[in-house]
Amino acid sequence: MELPGGPTQEEVIAVALGKLRLKPRDRVVEVGCGTGAVTLALAQTGARVLAIDRRPEAIAAMRERLGAAGLTVDYVSGEAAACIEGKGPFEAAFVGGSRDLGEVLGILAEQVSGAIVVNAVLLSTVHAAVETMTGLGIFKEAVQVQISRSHPLAGSIMWRPIDPVCVIVGRGRLRCS
Amino acid sequence: MELPGGPTQEEVIAVALGKLRLKPRDRVVEVGCGTGAVTLALAQTGARVLAIDRRPEAIAAMRERLGAAGLTVDYVSGEAAACIEGKGPFEAAFVGGSRDLGEVLGILAEQVSGAIVVNAVLLSTVHAAVETMTGLGIFKEAVQVQISRSHPLAGSIMWRPIDPVCVIVGRGRLRCS
Amino acid sequence: MELPGGPTQEEVIAVALGKLRLKPRDRVVEVGCGTGAVTLALAQTGARVLAIDRRPEAIAAMRERLGAAGLTVDYVSGEAAACIEGKGPFEAAFVGGSRDLGEVLGILAEQVSGAIVVNAVLLSTVHAAVETMTGLGIFKEAVQVQISRSHPLAGSIMWRPIDPVCVIVGRGRLRCS
Amino acid sequence: MELPGGPTQEEVIAVALGKLRLKPRDRVVEVGCGTGAVTLALAQTGARVLAIDRRPEAIAAMRERLGAAGLTVDYVSGEAAACIEGKGPFEAAFVGGSRDLGEVLGILAEQVSGAIVVNAVLLSTVHAAVETMTGLGIFKEAVQVQISRSHPLAGSIMWRPIDPVCVIVGRGRLRCS
Repeated sequence: MELPGGPTQEEVIAVALGKLRLKPRDRVVEVGCGTGAVTLALAQTGARVLAIDRRPEAIAAMRERLGAAGLTVDYVSGEAAACIEGKGPFEAAFVGGSRDLGEVLGILAEQVSGAIVVNAVLLSTVHAAVETMTGLGIFKEAVQVQISRSHPLAGSIMWRPIDPVCVIVGRGRLRCS
Repeated sequence: MELPGGPTQEEVIAVALGKLRLKPRDRVVEVGCGTGAVTLALAQTGARVLAIDRRPEAIAAMRERLGAAGLTVDYVSGEAAACIEGKGPFEAAFVGGSRDLGEVLGILAEQVSGAIVVNAVLLSTVHAAVETMTGLGIFKEAVQVQISRSHPLAGSIMWRPIDPVCVIVGRGRLRCS
Repeated sequence: MELPGGPTQEEVIAVALGKLRLKPRDRVVEVGCGTGAVTLALAQTGARVLAIDRRPEAIAAMRERLGAAGLTVDYVSGEAAACIEGKGPFEAAFVGGSRDLGEVLGILAEQVSGAIVVNAVLLSTVHAAVETMTGLGIFKEAVQVQISRSHPLAGSIMWRPIDPVCVIVGRGRLRCS
Repeated sequence: MELPGGPTQEEVIAVALGKLRLKPRDRVVEVGCGTGAVTLALAQTGARVLAIDRRPEAIAAMRERLGAAGLTVDYVSGEAAACIEGKGPFEAAFVGGSRDLGEVLGILAEQVSGAIVVNAVLLSTVHAAVETMTGLGIFKEAVQVQISRSHPLAGSIMWRPIDPVCVIVGRGRLRCS
């Protein structure tokens, strides 16, 4: 869907989740939930998730995946910027895909008190996420995740890499009174 | 300590934790806990941890780290094979370092019902873990984790890689009655 | 020097050279030669090299390195754009560093008939090189080179990665009459 | 063929060639030439190549590839150990695949005066090559080569990795009188 290269792989989700540093009951907003691979992982931490995607069919697929696991999340289908407004505050945000990353990050910077994590595979998105976060004064770090998985061959194993993903991490400016 | 290359890095811990698939209250044994970087992450999931290290000073350092986080784990200082016997069953096991990996994996295969995860950076350890698990019929997969982190430079960022780590995953043969 | 992360490593030079597809007696221009690690490799192929660097001390270091290997190249110290004008045509170009990459690539596109290779470690430079080449209609491909080297440890080896480098490849528009 | 993962990719060939440090007119033996991707690169350096493969159809494919490039090499179809005996001395050797790596490396150690390079993708082969070379006292280094290539997507690029390859480098013990 929005995230080129197919659904986010479990190892990449694990790294992104680690950067989010969620505590149970934290409120986290997910922009571009797609079919819900990351949504499921977020919900399994005990966090309260608001999942956003502009495609109703993505929301439906996500809900089916969550339901099969006996989990529920809040959700809304629409453009992220409009969907986030007035829904905060959040402890954390995850952006798996967005058409207007700059605007979304600007809003998240004000609505989030903790980690804002963007997963990106496009060079232009990696560059834009780093530049935008830096401009907003919220950039913390980025990591490139390159995972190779074993495949059995000739009685041993060889390595087959999955597409590398950049995990860009910022920190929201919202400070609780 | 036992794990060459220094303490396990957070992104690598995240991937290993993902492979362990711990549920709260699971019992997990950690072989070669070192100074406790992984122990802390295990304990934070709500699992009940038995941490083993043959070096008393490692156990002391681990306990201090856990205590600073307000967490406690069971622990024992000694050779892993002897320390595990009679302490099971466990839902999962993590091996961060061991002098006698073959013997330890043989014991874990019988004492663990879920994931057995070995982190290794030495080529000979990676090879031995895969071969031993395969011989025991418990090998599931291995992943190589290559993480690069951003470093600010000249108004942009460059990537600085950390040492790659192999995460070798098996599944214990213990079946609950 | 201009290229963050120190001199280009031999494996990265090998990949870049492969992309240049030099034939003996080809004329190749190198922008940002630094202390000459790549210059030496270019000269060893039998190509005729014009090495450019705006820092006289870099040129001096490069010449000393080449002289120690019994090789000579043409060279000029100054801003690349000015130094290239009127010096072509070239069969190939290598850019190891430049202050004004956009202008340099624009000039090279007209002066080079074969491969134009840019090595970059900064995210902003990778992005700019791809975007500029694409805008000029000369972009062919980019490859990310991640090399890990063995280090002896405990009777075996572990892997120590060197900084990843992007090699961006274009093709000059100069067509020989 | 013998080398799992298909023909050796150009960037990996470039790194391996760099490690071979061939000079024009050097004699190099290639064990497991397959369809000749590496053979062609070896021949293009001006080295004199002896290509060995136990499969006549591989030799035929290699010869066709070389012929199309206007190049010729010596060749022999058979088991490597038998084919090498009495054919040296060589300045360098490249092993792309072999059934009996240990025996072949033992012979090459005595017949080669310069670099002996083994490309391997199987974990067991990497391990065996390092262990055997170390036992023979000829191990120099190993490098893991992880290349990702750009793929155009959504007006930008993403990275698609190719299978990582280990390049294991030794140095033959033959000393010229």
